[in-house]
Amino acid sequence: MPRTLADKPESPDRRSRRSAELRERIFRAALELFAQKSFAETTVEDITTAADVGKGTFFNYFPSKDHILLAFGEMQLQRLRETVAEARRTNLPLLEFLRSLVTLMTKEPIRNPEVIRSLLLAFLSNPEVRQAMMDLQTKVLALHSEMVQLGQERGEVRKDLAPIDIAQVFRQTIFGTLLIWSLYGDASLPSRMDSAFEIIWSGLSPRRQSGNVSSSTLVVPMFM
Amino acid sequence: MPRTLADKPESPDRRSRRSAELRERIFRAALELFAQKSFAETTVEDITTAADVGKGTFFNYFPSKDHILLAFGEMQLQRLRETVAEARRTNLPLLEFLRSLVTLMTKEPIRNPEVIRSLLLAFLSNPEVRQAMMDLQTKVLALHSEMVQLGQERGEVRKDLAPIDIAQVFRQTIFGTLLIWSLYGDASLPSRMDSAFEIIWSGLSPRRQSGNVSSSTLVVPMFM
Repeated sequence: MPRTLADKPESPDRRSRRSAELRERIFRAALELFAQKSFAETTVEDITTAADVGKGTFFNYFPSKDHILLAFGEMQLQRLRETVAEARRTNLPLLEFLRSLVTLMTKEPIRNPEVIRSLLLAFLSNPEVRQAMMDLQTKVLALHSEMVQLGQERGEVRKDLAPIDIAQVFRQTIFGTLLIWSLYGDASLPSRMDSAFEIIWSGLSPRRQSGNVSSSTLVVPMFM
Repeated sequence: MPRTLADKPESPDRRSRRSAELRERIFRAALELFAQKSFAETTVEDITTAADVGKGTFFNYFPSKDHILLAFGEMQLQRLRETVAEARRTNLPLLEFLRSLVTLMTKEPIRNPEVIRSLLLAFLSNPEVRQAMMDLQTKVLALHSEMVQLGQERGEVRKDLAPIDIAQVFRQTIFGTLLIWSLYGDASLPSRMDSAFEIIWSGLSPRRQSGNVSSSTLVVPMFM
């Protein structure tokens, strides 16, 4: 398509839009390849071929293949920020907020076991990725904690545990579920998340009132 | 020390005891090295030097370095079997059985973040190890389920979830806690496990009776 104002240099707006689109294209192509043939076996060249860009273009956006995974983490963080803002705006009950996080953590591309394995592998084996991911985690946990605290203030959640501890358990449960499921890679992810969520929310105690042991009696036995 | 009966060939009992000792020595040396310098950077030669055995001896016991991790899984399974047998014998309440599992999963060598990272890495990256670990997991889950069912029969645990689902959530939570903690590798493992355990057991619902939402009201919102 010919430019409408051929002599005018590209506007900064359009340039940054084009740049974001290119970055997104590389990112999507990479995630698809990781899913098809694993993170380890995907080369930067595979990615640039699939995204139809030059190698130089790739390195303009991502210093290394690992940085694609970091971009993935940032994308998730951005989605989380939007979810939190929306939940605050609509005064969403914590129960529903947490459900929306489960949904966030089980939709594409996370629903692909190979993507999860790639993410976790990079997390575990590469100290630079690990550090960057831990920085991301700190931000994610702060957002979760904020929501848990709100839930506590509204009387939706028990108050005898610190918001950050509750947020951490929630986070660990999601990652543990993703980890174990990714080894099987079957269709069980939603039902695994559902059970975990159900138990975390309402507890293992029997539905009888007398079985609802108060937390103070629980702290004793095996750790002493 | 000179043999007392120099001409008698080694008895099958002693041979199998020596064999078990050798295997154990190689295994311990390997785990120590994985902890010191990571699984990836440990060679079979490092292990045989540390254990003071020949390379041939190593391969008699372990077809590859990865098999050390499988042996680790088998050791844990064996410990679990003993714990289950003991719990059945003493009619241990499920709460205390689960606590003993947490203890089992947080003692040496698991308390070493590098060991956990090595285990998870092998799990994620090596299909052969993964398959063998999944077979182990099946046995572990069956034992957990058995205990959960016993807890249900004794009225200690809610009955609206299948024992296997509860066992899976427990397992996933333990692995998720180990995974996230291993990235930090700090002293927080016991307190992370404690919080996870506390929430799983008693739930996030407020300690007020009215806040103890029945499970049937929880299934609806965001998944529809």
